[in-house]
Amino acid sequence: MRTIALLTDFGLSDSYAGAMKGAILTISSNVNLVDLTHNADSHNIEKASFLLLSSYRYFPKKTIFVAVVDPGVGSKRKAVALKTRNYYFVGPDNGILSLAACDDGIKRIVSLDNKKYFSETISGTFHGRDIFASVAAYISKNVKITSLGGTLRQMKTLHFSVPQIKDNMLIGQIIHIDKFGNLVTNIKKKYFLKFIKKGRFIAHLKGKSIRNIYNFYEESDIENPFFIEGSSSFLEISLKRRNARKYFKSRTKDKIIIRRIF
Amino acid sequence: MRTIALLTDFGLSDSYAGAMKGAILTISSNVNLVDLTHNADSHNIEKASFLLLSSYRYFPKKTIFVAVVDPGVGSKRKAVALKTRNYYFVGPDNGILSLAACDDGIKRIVSLDNKKYFSETISGTFHGRDIFASVAAYISKNVKITSLGGTLRQMKTLHFSVPQIKDNMLIGQIIHIDKFGNLVTNIKKKYFLKFIKKGRFIAHLKGKSIRNIYNFYEESDIENPFFIEGSSSFLEISLKRRNARKYFKSRTKDKIIIRRIF
Amino acid sequence: MRTIALLTDFGLSDSYAGAMKGAILTISSNVNLVDLTHNADSHNIEKASFLLLSSYRYFPKKTIFVAVVDPGVGSKRKAVALKTRNYYFVGPDNGILSLAACDDGIKRIVSLDNKKYFSETISGTFHGRDIFASVAAYISKNVKITSLGGTLRQMKTLHFSVPQIKDNMLIGQIIHIDKFGNLVTNIKKKYFLKFIKKGRFIAHLKGKSIRNIYNFYEESDIENPFFIEGSSSFLEISLKRRNARKYFKSRTKDKIIIRRIF
Repeated sequence: MRTIALLTDFGLSDSYAGAMKGAILTISSNVNLVDLTHNADSHNIEKASFLLLSSYRYFPKKTIFVAVVDPGVGSKRKAVALKTRNYYFVGPDNGILSLAACDDGIKRIVSLDNKKYFSETISGTFHGRDIFASVAAYISKNVKITSLGGTLRQMKTLHFSVPQIKDNMLIGQIIHIDKFGNLVTNIKKKYFLKFIKKGRFIAHLKGKSIRNIYNFYEESDIENPFFIEGSSSFLEISLKRRNARKYFKSRTKDKIIIRRIF
Repeated sequence: MRTIALLTDFGLSDSYAGAMKGAILTISSNVNLVDLTHNADSHNIEKASFLLLSSYRYFPKKTIFVAVVDPGVGSKRKAVALKTRNYYFVGPDNGILSLAACDDGIKRIVSLDNKKYFSETISGTFHGRDIFASVAAYISKNVKITSLGGTLRQMKTLHFSVPQIKDNMLIGQIIHIDKFGNLVTNIKKKYFLKFIKKGRFIAHLKGKSIRNIYNFYEESDIENPFFIEGSSSFLEISLKRRNARKYFKSRTKDKIIIRRIF
Repeated sequence: MRTIALLTDFGLSDSYAGAMKGAILTISSNVNLVDLTHNADSHNIEKASFLLLSSYRYFPKKTIFVAVVDPGVGSKRKAVALKTRNYYFVGPDNGILSLAACDDGIKRIVSLDNKKYFSETISGTFHGRDIFASVAAYISKNVKITSLGGTLRQMKTLHFSVPQIKDNMLIGQIIHIDKFGNLVTNIKKKYFLKFIKKGRFIAHLKGKSIRNIYNFYEESDIENPFFIEGSSSFLEISLKRRNARKYFKSRTKDKIIIRRIF
């Protein structure tokens, strides 16, 4: 059975996500529907794009991801379907698909032009239900993505901020904060270890320091924040059984500076 | 595979919704379970009824909707199953099913009397699990609804407030506010267009005015609120990338007054 | 189709729960995935354990429950799979599984040692995805739990506080508060009825009194709190269409004292 995974900013108090699933099942009842989240921040394409990047690879090959954070719905922004090395992605052409799709390796980008694969009536405000859900359902029924519309040479792609080295400092930033208050940085653990060369380090975030890196939470005492490799292989800043977001008063885009100590 | 769609006010922090699904799967493991929402306002039958109305038609034919906002659980209020033109509905006889079922066209109303299709033990507080889930599961296995109990001539039906025309003003009200702050009115776009006859208009809500109607969000500037046809074909009041609920300080049941300008 | 039911403290705003489901479907696409809740209080093993206890028995036999509230993830705490009389349970050996598993009757405890049934790479922070989801998926494919690792004689077991009788008073406590504000006690209705012997009673919680017991909410007036048998067969303290938590300003672990009146 094919999997269709949904990521939206529709929330769970309205019936929007439910209506998308209804639209899918009307076309193809033999799919596994999985929610990545429907609580993406309203209109925040960057954050949703990171959530997709950090989870897509744990899904079965050929999973179809439908991602809809779409403030431009109904306007001239394109709608696209992508085939990547292992997966399919469907959504607005506003960058939301780009981090995950580029990470997996894009094989084809198609502009969703063929109305045959849309719902009969198209709302001006809810392409998630009337276009993206419908198209995903047809892909799950093995409709070729080249049938969906013309091939595009390029699509809108988000810039994923990579850490910088400057004056012997490794400079990264907070790109996501999870429910536990863990601060996800844009620094891969491998890259960090290469930078500190098995030496000691001190990192600063919002005027407070981090001096340790651990493999799991329980290695730490309860007082001091530490780095830990998160589940998406980026370094995270955590506090044992406490909330690092509150401790640092940190937000996404905050800068983190790491220095070697000799 | 049949779809069973659930709408409750049970929230997502307890395991009530999960237990309903367990009860369904115990009887019928070959169904697609879809959440419409479990975050309906506690005990708010009207709001839940609107959510069901606005989403039911996007589901596959023969979908069984189970809607449980049920402050009268365990009392003498009846429990019902409905067959409509295209769907089945199961829930308490308190009006929650009425807007969607009437919209689709009711073919039969049955009082849930036959305990054969209930769980073995019936909690006085959780008919969602012990009666409604169980009955829905049996319907998905093609048990006829006439087997579930006696036919009723009528059921409790909510009054859906329709817009009024008075002294050349079109008077409607806010019937739902979604996660984005969009204010859903009870005025269908068609009805509005017929009223303004291609002319200009001015609308007032909570002392502020609305002067434009658009087909999609991006047509608007960022300053001014506007009408837009929402995904359930009612007019909504929105602000581009902002929250109209906060802008108007509006609540459900607020009155909106529309005048033609000559 | 086998059911796998998930209970975590991962929340619904990140994609952690989604990634667990992706990991399961990668191994076994022919399962029913059900969320018990992902909103268990962060790191609160006791509360999660109660949620599992109160809902597991409504699931089909052979359901596999995966429960992950796991502050000790990555440390030396064991990971276990249990076979009980009717079900399977998978999770950290920190007590989270113990109330439900003991209630159903444990037949075998296995330490998850066999890496063959884990994901290829194991994150130090997300065994929910890399170990527990994976193992549950293999159990759903009929891998014997004895293949998963060595049998254990015992596991960490939570102490479920049972009510006490002292100086002719029945003393219980609040063990859970649900979304509606219903206060779930640790007193089974049967036990309560035996104590009061068909007589009258007065109960005290946080300086306020309860004098009635009803079978359903609508039996009560709107002013006075009352006992009612909740859906998990424990007595709950409720207020008709109001929030008993707010009325009593109560929290879990608050003591409730019941006296007979002659």
